[in-house]
Amino acid sequence: MYTLYGDALSGNCYKVQLLMALLDMEYHWVAVDILAGDTQTSTFKQLNVNQKIPVLALNDQQTLAESNAILNYLAEGSIYLPDNPLDRAKVLQWQFFEQYSHEPFIAVARYINKYLGLPDDKKEEYQSKQVGGYKALAVMDEALSHSPFLVGKTLTIADISLYAYTHVAHEGGFDLSAYSHINEWMQRIESQARYQVLPIIP
Amino acid sequence: MYTLYGDALSGNCYKVQLLMALLDMEYHWVAVDILAGDTQTSTFKQLNVNQKIPVLALNDQQTLAESNAILNYLAEGSIYLPDNPLDRAKVLQWQFFEQYSHEPFIAVARYINKYLGLPDDKKEEYQSKQVGGYKALAVMDEALSHSPFLVGKTLTIADISLYAYTHVAHEGGFDLSAYSHINEWMQRIESQARYQVLPIIP
Repeated sequence: MYTLYGDALSGNCYKVQLLMALLDMEYHWVAVDILAGDTQTSTFKQLNVNQKIPVLALNDQQTLAESNAILNYLAEGSIYLPDNPLDRAKVLQWQFFEQYSHEPFIAVARYINKYLGLPDDKKEEYQSKQVGGYKALAVMDEALSHSPFLVGKTLTIADISLYAYTHVAHEGGFDLSAYSHINEWMQRIESQARYQVLPIIP
Repeated sequence: MYTLYGDALSGNCYKVQLLMALLDMEYHWVAVDILAGDTQTSTFKQLNVNQKIPVLALNDQQTLAESNAILNYLAEGSIYLPDNPLDRAKVLQWQFFEQYSHEPFIAVARYINKYLGLPDDKKEEYQSKQVGGYKALAVMDEALSHSPFLVGKTLTIADISLYAYTHVAHEGGFDLSAYSHINEWMQRIESQARYQVLPIIP
């Protein structure tokens, strides 16, 4: 059985948990408290030299980090990762978009607000995240105006990646009401069998 | 033949060009000037809704964006992308590390310095990139102390991804002299047959 090291409030960890729920896959959960410094220990560094969560332990020796890399590993051979080479690359395109153009704005604004309680010395950074976050939402909404899911007609791990922080974007101050295609897409995801809401506490 | 839209000074475009050089693959090159606004046109938006380079056009209808997604697409079936599922996921782990923990610091500092000429109103942002950039270099150096390449014993697209901005990190103000494992790794990459130095102008 896999062991997953994570924080139940983290969207990056939720991505992996949601896929494992959809795949009906059991795992051992180890709660990691970022704010208490749990990722900054030498023990944790053995799991991931970059000292971030989530980390998937395959066994005593082998671990895998980076939420989207873990999704690709776990989804291989399932309906959530296409066989077609171009579709597979399109899944990655959306996952790299997520990590570069979406997460650093929407997830970071949410972190400042929800984890840190929007302290005065973070308000400028919080505000600076709004423009980039809305730009990412506009890109997604346009793509979803042409297609029910981000890559083709069925749910893939590209959708799981982008759903994780989009569906809690309001916790970072983002108003999703104008993005009708995103809202319909979120409903399609939430209607999947075995879907679970964040936080998933195993 | 593929068409590649890019900027010859961009490390993200160079990644794709370097892989295509190693694979001895011909392509049609379309120079895109970011500073002149070439990516902000409606024509370019048809190629990539996120309006960034590089973009690979497979034909008149199909395009692929995000440098690391393009690398995975082009490297499929070659020696630069392993067959083993865990090694493939490790390649992705390093590529997501590159886009989240390396590029936003090292490439952005280089952009401010080399493209924009380090203007006064960007000096604070430039300085703020130094800590994260050195942290990413330390992570790489530690990993490369255990292994000649980032994933296993041979060059993969994980190395190409990280090499692109690491080997020009000095243009962003980073001093690489203390990172002996990174320097040896760069020499191993530069000694590959068909290696080409940045900029590659087809």
